[in-house]
Parts: sequence; structure tokens; C-alpha cells
Amino acid sequence: RINGERLWSSLMELAQIGATAKGGVKRLALTDLDKQGRDLVVSWGKQAGMSITIDQIGNVFMRRAGRNSALPPVMSGSHIDTQPTGGKFDGNYGVLAALEVVRTLNDHHIETEAPIEVAFWTNEEGSRFVPVMMGSGVFCGAFTLETAYAAKDTEGKTVGDELERIGYKGTEVPGQHPIGAYFETHIEQGPVLEDADKVIGVVPGVLGLSWYDCVVTGMEAHAGPTPMGLRKDALQVATGIMQEVVNIGNRYPPYGRGTVGMVQVFPNSRNVIPGEVKFSIDLRNVSSELLDTMHQEILAFVEQTSNNSGLHISVERVSYYPPCPFHSDCVDAVRNATATLGCSTMDVVSGAGHDAIYTARLAPSGMIFVPCKDGISHNEIEDAKPEHLAAGCNVLLHAMLAKAQR
Amino acid sequence: RINGERLWSSLMELAQIGATAKGGVKRLALTDLDKQGRDLVVSWGKQAGMSITIDQIGNVFMRRAGRNSALPPVMSGSHIDTQPTGGKFDGNYGVLAALEVVRTLNDHHIETEAPIEVAFWTNEEGSRFVPVMMGSGVFCGAFTLETAYAAKDTEGKTVGDELERIGYKGTEVPGQHPIGAYFETHIEQGPVLEDADKVIGVVPGVLGLSWYDCVVTGMEAHAGPTPMGLRKDALQVATGIMQEVVNIGNRYPPYGRGTVGMVQVFPNSRNVIPGEVKFSIDLRNVSSELLDTMHQEILAFVEQTSNNSGLHISVERVSYYPPCPFHSDCVDAVRNATATLGCSTMDVVSGAGHDAIYTARLAPSGMIFVPCKDGISHNEIEDAKPEHLAAGCNVLLHAMLAKAQR
Ligand SMILES: NC(=O)NCCC(=O)O
Ligand SMILES: NC(=O)NCCC(=O)O
Repeated sequence: RINGERLWSSLMELAQIGATAKGGVKRLALTDLDKQGRDLVVSWGKQAGMSITIDQIGNVFMRRAGRNSALPPVMSGSHIDTQPTGGKFDGNYGVLAALEVVRTLNDHHIETEAPIEVAFWTNEEGSRFVPVMMGSGVFCGAFTLETAYAAKDTEGKTVGDELERIGYKGTEVPGQHPIGAYFETHIEQGPVLEDADKVIGVVPGVLGLSWYDCVVTGMEAHAGPTPMGLRKDALQVATGIMQEVVNIGNRYPPYGRGTVGMVQVFPNSRNVIPGEVKFSIDLRNVSSELLDTMHQEILAFVEQTSNNSGLHISVERVSYYPPCPFHSDCVDAVRNATATLGCSTMDVVSGAGHDAIYTARLAPSGMIFVPCKDGISHNEIEDAKPEHLAAGCNVLLHAMLAKAQR
Repeated sequence: RINGERLWSSLMELAQIGATAKGGVKRLALTDLDKQGRDLVVSWGKQAGMSITIDQIGNVFMRRAGRNSALPPVMSGSHIDTQPTGGKFDGNYGVLAALEVVRTLNDHHIETEAPIEVAFWTNEEGSRFVPVMMGSGVFCGAFTLETAYAAKDTEGKTVGDELERIGYKGTEVPGQHPIGAYFETHIEQGPVLEDADKVIGVVPGVLGLSWYDCVVTGMEAHAGPTPMGLRKDALQVATGIMQEVVNIGNRYPPYGRGTVGMVQVFPNSRNVIPGEVKFSIDLRNVSSELLDTMHQEILAFVEQTSNNSGLHISVERVSYYPPCPFHSDCVDAVRNATATLGCSTMDVVSGAGHDAIYTARLAPSGMIFVPCKDGISHNEIEDAKPEHLAAGCNVLLHAMLAKAQR
């Protein structure tokens, strides 16, 4: 069993770096605060006897030797960067749970056949630099190191320069680092576990995701003198599409998701008929087939809406992550661990992307979810219970031990 | 007949004050530029032999004596302040057309029984200071001088101080100034005349107007991990109401109008289900009964939507102007003038509010519309044809002469 108090106090200590007045954390990727956070975690890793490797995109791997150093390590981790108004647990829990596993093995002088590694990946959040999940994305070859280095924040500072500045531009070529299996513990970021009153979510995979930008172009005109029949009201046309986005999500339960999160209306004046409306579309589902069906349906609906209204409508896909089923070896390892420990459990497909969807392209991967209060994350009021965090960490310990052969 | 070239060249000269690079005018109420514009128009008035009176809210009255100075004047005017990205014609045309009438009477040594007055009202646009139609509103007692004086711009400067500063805080008590009849020429600000290929709009009245602020409160949550059934999506609920606003406008032709012009979504992030949506509602119609029916329908729809969705929705009326039918004497004077002059004409109910809706509370009032290009106003590309502007001014001349008794 892991030491839940030690895990909790490490979480609280790390959360001091970038702590906000409202009880959250603001520790954006590659800032001075990120450097402080990284330094603290690395110092803990060294205290636990681990050796440190940093790759060229700043991913950090902390290694506890196994009996057989030729075997690829069983790895666990997540990220320590946060949203601008982020919480104490998102990402940080996954890293410190992995560290707690190593501390526990040390306490009990347990050797493993394969090495054990604790990883944290650069810029998972994507708040300061896009794309999201940058470190794991470069690691698995989803995009190049050059692309990542060139990414700029709003002040024009680049990832390459900022990595150099904070001293975390390592030398290892990303993706050269071997992985035998990868586990990631994370708060659920949704309400399902809490709603079902379960402690552990076994994560069979992650929903695929399509993001779009949609622009409806009408004709700006005065709301008073323009009769209804002579209008080209971009908002009236846009709201029809926004509703269909949600309808499409509803049409493919249980994993279909359809969300419009961002809307901009021009000129956005009380007595002017909107001339242009821009909005985002977020579609998700568990299989490529279902996600593709949803994709076709929104495109067809937009075309039909454009024909019916006579307004120009553009819809462009700006991101796509295919659904990511996790490897049965890892999913089973997690499931068996919950059985061994007697945890209350259910399967929860991850609705949000995580570094594990990228590691899954290179090695068997799996995830463990614990409940978070009201399903809230990416928010300073994000909260989780110490006993749930400890339970997730115990499941991680047993799953890793199963893969690393005690 | 008036002198169309003189009218046009005065319009172009006034439009130099605050001219924008895109061919429009930016001359916000009570700025230095407004002072320059006022000074120019007043100098023209003096050159035309008129005496000047300024009231405490800065409304300017320029008087051409009649044979019988005891008779209340036949007045015409509008405003010379503009929107931040305004055009050359909105308001300015109404003032300079009235001035052109006086210049024409002078050219032809025509005396009238009643005095003739040219008026311009303070801060009609409401862009720098709210409420709109401030000068005429104070004049007719819709709100107090104190309320108007206290209105602040975004820098905290008040109407009272700015009137003083530019030298247009007069001494006459607003509303004390007698009016026998009031006419206002204006660009239509809509597409109806152009669409029907007519030159003069006889304006039987102005639509009543109800403005509302609506706020839908849901629950902000991550778009990925939150199943459709566990969402409180404020935008999905809001779009239903937005569509009903337009439906209500369509349900009461030909004068019903329903517009949502302004929308704010919180937190407005691509992968966050909106937790709050604020938007404006603009309903208009020609009679109090119809406007009240529309008012009841939107309130009922909002209540039903709140009950069905379980989300809290507030809707608050923030402005109301009752429908304003113009006095038949004035409408007939305009109609007869178009007949005398042989203009192509039609009735066009004004969809937008004008100073004339306030003068109408004190004296018989009427309006004359001329077409504007593509119905566009409140825009730097606002445009109108010299021959249409001249035609409207001729109609004004004849209507005023009919009321002032040549
Ligand atoms: N974990 C997480 O918030 N990922 C962001 C990308 C997404 O919206 O799934
Ligand atoms: N003329 C004009 O634009 N008035 C503004 C108030 C309205 O929206 O009717």
C-alpha cells in the first residue's frame, strides 16, 4: 500500500508553486514557475534514488533501476503545467502518484525485473503554446521538434527559447526513450464516477475528437428599418447549426458529444442584425466510424443550411485526434489491480485527451481515473478527496508491479 | 425648388469635420469636433439671417421670423452628432435640408405667416452618452435635465461638463421653446425604398421598441468527459430563445421585428460547455397591442424554456419606446407635397427611433425618408444620391410652406 499522506502532502507542496488566491494553481508551461515545479519534482526523484534524463522537448524521465536493465521500463506519469486558472490535481496527480509508487517500492525494498520510470511531459495543457500535449506529441512523432520549437506564446516567445532559458532543453532525441508499458492516473474531469458513486475508473480508451471553426456570413443591417423578409441574419442561421451540433451529440449515445463552446458575433450591437458569426464545434465519439458519421452529418447539415438560407457558411476542421482504445494488457492490469484491492470500480471512457493517447502509439498504455468534485477541472475550485487519490495510486502500484514483474 | 447643389456642397463641407479615412464621419456628441460642426452650422444660420437660441441641454434653434411672431414656429431639423464609424448623411441631412429650405425662402424673398426654425438636437446617437435621443428626450420631458447632465462617457466625463466646455450649455429651459409643427427629413436606414424603387417615403409613424437583456445560467463543464445527459449547456438553451425572437418577429408581419444583436458566451472556450450566455433582444411593431403581444410571447417562451430545461433564465426589459403614429396634419402635408412635386412615393413606417418621436409628444410631427444605398447606415460606407436628397428637401419645403402659410 502506498502512503496516502505523503502523496497528499507532496501534492500540496507542489501546488504552492504558482498558488492562486482562489486556491488554484497558475503554472504555465516553460515559465519560471514551471521551472521551479520541475526542479522540485526532479529533486524528489533524486532523493528517491532515481536517475534523470531530459529529452530535447523537455520531457523528463526519472528512472528506478530494475534487475534487468535491458528491459524497457514500465513508465507512469502525466504533466505538471497547468491552465491559467487551473487546479492542484490535473496532471500533477499523475506525476506524483507515479513518484509515490517509487517511494513505496523503496520503503519496502521491493525490486522489479523491469526498470520503473516516472515521466512528466512538456506543455500538456496547450494554454501558453499550441498544440496541446506537445511533449508527448513530439515524442510519438505526431508532429516535429521544429514545429514545437517554433510555437509562440502571445508575447512572441518560442518554445525553443523558453526551454533553453529554464534549462530544460535536454539532449535525448524525443521518441528514442524506450517504454515497455505506460500508465497514467488522472482526475476524471467529468461527473461519471461521482454520479455512480465509484472510486476507480478503469479507462478502456479515449474518445476521438474533431474540432471545427464555422463562419456564417450574412449582411449587417439596422434592426429597426430592415423588414424580416429582407434580412440576412447570420446569427439566426448560426443558431440552427449550433443546435444541430448538440443534436448530433445526442444522436450517438452513450459516447457521442457535441459542443459549441466559443461564439463571436459581429458587430455585436444591440440594434444591428449580425453580419457575421464565428463559432467552434467540438464533436467526439468512441469509434472512428461513429465520429466519421457525426463529421458527415454536420457537413451535410451546414451545406443544407447554406442552400436553404442563401448565406455563405464555411466549416473547417482544425484538429483531429482519432479514438484511442488502450491496450488490453494495460486495461486488464488496471482492472485486476482494482479486483485485488477490492475497489468500487466501473469503466469510464476518457472524454478528454491525455498524454497517454500519444504514448499508446508506441507502447501498451492505460489510464486510471479517480473522481473529482462535481466533475470540475480546468478551474481553481478543482478538488479531489485524499482517499480517492490514494486509492488510484494503490491501483497504479499494483498495475505497474504486475507489468514490471516483482 | 431648393438648390440641390448647395445642399450637397454643405453636406460635404460639414462632413469634413471628423472625416474618416474610409469616407465616413466620426463626430461624437459634445466633443471638440461636435463643437466645430455646431459652430459651422450656426455660422450658416446667421449668414441666412436667423437668430440663435440654445437651451440648457444644448439643443440649438435657428429662427427665421414670420409675419406673425406670436405664432409658434414650423420647425425642422435632426442631429449632427454621428456614430463612431458613422456616415455623412444620418442626422446631418435633416439639419442641412432645413437650412436649405430657409436659404431657398431667402433667395425667393418668400415670407411666411409663422416663423420657420431649424433645430438640431444634442446627442441623438447615444454612442458617447446614453440614453439616445437625449436632447429631444429632455425637451419633451421623457427624462430630466439632471439625468442627462449626469450621463458619463467611458472616460467618466459628464454631459453637463462637456456642454459647458464646448460652450453649448444654453440658458433656455428645455421644452419652453414653442413648436407649431415639426418635420424631419432622414435617410431611411433601411432597404424598403430602394427595394421598391421609390424616391420619397411618407412616414406615417415609428415602430414601438422593446429592448431586453436575457441571461441563461447553466453549468460550465469540460466538453469531453461530460456526457450529454449530465450537461447544463447554457448556449443550447439560449439558442432556442434566440430563434424564437426571430420567429416572433416573423409572426407579426409586415412590421414585426425580432433581432438578437449582441451575444456573450462564458467562458467562451472551445472545449468548455458554456456556463452562462448573455444576449440582447430587440422587438418592434407598429401598435402597442402587437408589441405587447410579442412581449408576452417572449416572456412565456422564456418561462417555458426555463421549466423544460431546468436552467435559470432572467429576462429584463431595459428600454421601451411606444409606437409613435405621426399627426395626420403633418403626414398629409408631406403626402400632398409629394403629389404637388410628382415624386415617386410610398408609405414607409420608420423602424428606427428619431428625435421626431419626442417632438411628437409636444406638437404635430412628421418625417420624410429618402433612400440610402443598400439600406446601410451607422457605417462609414453610408451613401445617398444627390437627386434623392434634393427631392426630399423639396418635399420638406412644400410641407413646411403649407403649415407656415406662405
Ligand atoms: N485533458 C484535457 O483537458 N485535454 C484537453 C483536450 C481536450 O479537450 O480533450
Ligand atoms: N435612428 C436610429 O438609428 N436610432 C437608434 C435607435 C433605434 O435602434 O431605433
